[in-house]
Amino acid sequence: MLERLDLSRKLTKAEFKAAREGLELELAALQRLAKERGLPVIILFEGWGASGKGTMINNLIMPLDPRGFTVHSTLRPTEEEALRPFLWRFWTQTPARGRIAIFDRSWYRQVVRERIEGDVKGKALAQAFQDIAAFERQLASDGAVIVKFLLHISRGEQRKRFQKLRDNPATSWRVTKQDLRDQRQYDQFLAAYEDMLAKSDADYAPWTVVEAHDERFATTKIFRTVIAALKTRLEAPPAAPVAKPARRQAAKPAPAEPATDLGSSILAGVDLSLAISEAEYDGRLDRLQDRLRELEHEIYRRRIPLVLVFEGWDAAGKGGCIRRLCRHLDPRGYGVVPIAAPNDVEKLHHYLWRFWLAMPKGGHIGIYDRSWYGRVLVERIEGFCSEAEWRRAYREINEMEQHMANAGTLVLKFWLHLDADEQLRRFQEREQDEHKQWKITEEDYRNRAKRDDYCRAVDEMLLRTDSPHAPWIVVEANCKRHARIKVLETVIATVEQRLDGKPHASERE
Amino acid sequence: MLERLDLSRKLTKAEFKAAREGLELELAALQRLAKERGLPVIILFEGWGASGKGTMINNLIMPLDPRGFTVHSTLRPTEEEALRPFLWRFWTQTPARGRIAIFDRSWYRQVVRERIEGDVKGKALAQAFQDIAAFERQLASDGAVIVKFLLHISRGEQRKRFQKLRDNPATSWRVTKQDLRDQRQYDQFLAAYEDMLAKSDADYAPWTVVEAHDERFATTKIFRTVIAALKTRLEAPPAAPVAKPARRQAAKPAPAEPATDLGSSILAGVDLSLAISEAEYDGRLDRLQDRLRELEHEIYRRRIPLVLVFEGWDAAGKGGCIRRLCRHLDPRGYGVVPIAAPNDVEKLHHYLWRFWLAMPKGGHIGIYDRSWYGRVLVERIEGFCSEAEWRRAYREINEMEQHMANAGTLVLKFWLHLDADEQLRRFQEREQDEHKQWKITEEDYRNRAKRDDYCRAVDEMLLRTDSPHAPWIVVEANCKRHARIKVLETVIATVEQRLDGKPHASERE
Repeated sequence: MLERLDLSRKLTKAEFKAAREGLELELAALQRLAKERGLPVIILFEGWGASGKGTMINNLIMPLDPRGFTVHSTLRPTEEEALRPFLWRFWTQTPARGRIAIFDRSWYRQVVRERIEGDVKGKALAQAFQDIAAFERQLASDGAVIVKFLLHISRGEQRKRFQKLRDNPATSWRVTKQDLRDQRQYDQFLAAYEDMLAKSDADYAPWTVVEAHDERFATTKIFRTVIAALKTRLEAPPAAPVAKPARRQAAKPAPAEPATDLGSSILAGVDLSLAISEAEYDGRLDRLQDRLRELEHEIYRRRIPLVLVFEGWDAAGKGGCIRRLCRHLDPRGYGVVPIAAPNDVEKLHHYLWRFWLAMPKGGHIGIYDRSWYGRVLVERIEGFCSEAEWRRAYREINEMEQHMANAGTLVLKFWLHLDADEQLRRFQEREQDEHKQWKITEEDYRNRAKRDDYCRAVDEMLLRTDSPHAPWIVVEANCKRHARIKVLETVIATVEQRLDGKPHASERE
Repeated sequence: MLERLDLSRKLTKAEFKAAREGLELELAALQRLAKERGLPVIILFEGWGASGKGTMINNLIMPLDPRGFTVHSTLRPTEEEALRPFLWRFWTQTPARGRIAIFDRSWYRQVVRERIEGDVKGKALAQAFQDIAAFERQLASDGAVIVKFLLHISRGEQRKRFQKLRDNPATSWRVTKQDLRDQRQYDQFLAAYEDMLAKSDADYAPWTVVEAHDERFATTKIFRTVIAALKTRLEAPPAAPVAKPARRQAAKPAPAEPATDLGSSILAGVDLSLAISEAEYDGRLDRLQDRLRELEHEIYRRRIPLVLVFEGWDAAGKGGCIRRLCRHLDPRGYGVVPIAAPNDVEKLHHYLWRFWLAMPKGGHIGIYDRSWYGRVLVERIEGFCSEAEWRRAYREINEMEQHMANAGTLVLKFWLHLDADEQLRRFQEREQDEHKQWKITEEDYRNRAKRDDYCRAVDEMLLRTDSPHAPWIVVEANCKRHARIKVLETVIATVEQRLDGKPHASERE
């Protein structure tokens, strides 16, 4: 999903200037309060070479009391460090109560660089993720606040920045051979970062992806994120033993409601002008549907389960896509599972229970018209579950999908995207059509009024639950024909790739 | 550690009769309250064939309202089940709020039987443990109470029970070929059970090992454990959303303080009469010390780190053992780390922080005179940490030791055991000896007065933190000579075994 992130986000000089002083004062006040309360704070920066980690750390520490923080740079382990378990050096660097430890790269080196260089793989990689999860959980249980940033820039931006550094004799030494090697491996790093996000995002130690093309935007986002994390904790009753009780109230900083929305956005970058003609559509649809039928037989023969999730705006055309997908399929091989609000029995169970029940078996296709993602969409926005519950859900959903993938299931998730105007046009069209009137209710308009909230929730969902083993595909759905063809082509390509690869242990033959 | 468990525990008919009715009434009352509060309850039974799982489940459900529970038997997955991820069938069986699900064997099949039969190994095994941890955590986060029993009988007892069943024509069909095959693989199952205990014990889903030779003892222990788990939760404010608010107070059951201690005991079975003569001691000591020196060089050459933990009663002879261990060693290759109460700086960190700092590097021997186990011994008993903190610590310690093992570290943990009389004799001897008087203080007597509390804590520690990659060795220390020789021999045998095996990835050459 990183490659689809809207990286054009910017703050003007005036906007930045207006925000900066308030943020700095607030952060400084929170640092003092954290010290008083004995709160240990860990802030880590991961991200591309030349993405500006050093600059960001510099900006962040500017307002801080230098007696209260330490910056740790994580390089290749020294000989001393290499002789110990990989977490050793990071444990030695964990902050005392009341102190802030800032990491310029971190323990994630083990699952990114060491992975790409081939030093950590297979069982050792799984163990490293487990070790990291235990490390962060243990610190969080002990009361630490953990904030994790991934600074993201595009391949082109990185190239440009390296070039600029190299062109200047005063800075050319800063671009190493390693950096240039890394740049050639941009794709491998991208895949490793995405896997890292999917496997190590947790409610007690969440990732924040920072669009780092614009320094002002990135700086502001980092400040706001750190401030929010500290405020949440310091305003709650202390959950863990602290060094000493608070002696006085914190200076009350002015509420810093974001003037600009700093949330990461995938949706903002979606090109909704994509369309295909009726002639082209007619020419391709049939062939794709036939091909999918052949593949359906093949995955049945090999006992591969396939899960297809459809989410999207009201009137985005989920139903139409699913109908085109299934038209030529053998009905004994697939099932469409429509998901509405949970019924009384379902409400008595864990929210994932009903989805486990409906999981397709080997060789079958389970098609979900809406899904478990309701937890982080409608349930989040309508307050049907608590904030703690939906925040926890990203990890729980990632775990469920990982479990499916471990068992050999192919999982694809489609977000059908259309803009507000096109949606309104379709609502009105439905109201005019006596056969479609039933499809449109007051609730659709109510949801539409909450489009901004939904956008934020969708963007967060796409970022936190995209993974190599269960990717999201954003489908440009202003043109229904384009959407249907894209879905069919994606499913076909994914299944073909799997059939061409090494068979999973669960497969027949 | 299971093979050292004291399996001779018994309850007399009279004791059992006196306890039974009260326990049954209490459990029934708690079931009603759990139903009212919408609490989902999961109780699972794992354990040997013929260990009495069926009987125990039958006893447990006797007082329960049959409309409120379901018993699930876990056999080899059906064809339908095998076509889905392994947790699928268990998710479908999770209880609704207010209901009790009882599992006769469970999802642990995946990491015990399937592992022994070779179907799950390497990366898949690590993933299965991760999947199980996520499953239980997700349910617990949603409010479920999870109680896990491992019914343990000795190899001899199992053989006897199978024989008895086979001798009776009415029951001989119950012993299958599979059972007899399993019996021949008793050792493999034992190892798998121990690994399971070490890797899946968690504060939100703890294991209880049940000594199952005596039905009355086992039944009582199971009742008391379930009752305690339900009471703890029902007396606390509800942590998760519940189906409906409580309408009335629970019937107040009489406090059922255990008349008999039902805790598992390793210590009770330790044979403290083990001793060796001075002549034998003198004859062996030197050779063992020389051999260890050779091995010290070898592990230095291969960069293998070795961690030796010494815990034990006051005056059990830890210091003497360590001195004999080190006498012929090259001092550049080892370090002794004495552990006292944490200092002011250490108190500002996670309790494991100072132990991470002192971790030996590859090729070195770290010898700990007391250790991180203080968390679950003195800190638990003296109330230096909260109950939640020491309960959490078993898992955190297992994770730290697993991390060391992943990195190629050899970890051995010695518990030096001696009886109360011998301890008193040594205290008095020290008081008489002007060179040893400094060793004995008031505190030693205070600790001695708490021997029962310490016994319980030590037994729980031995059970919850013994693991294949970091085993506990109970050392019979009434005879100091025996203790010293046993320690030396154990270290030598473990290092030799490692040197003979396949080199770990971290080793040189």
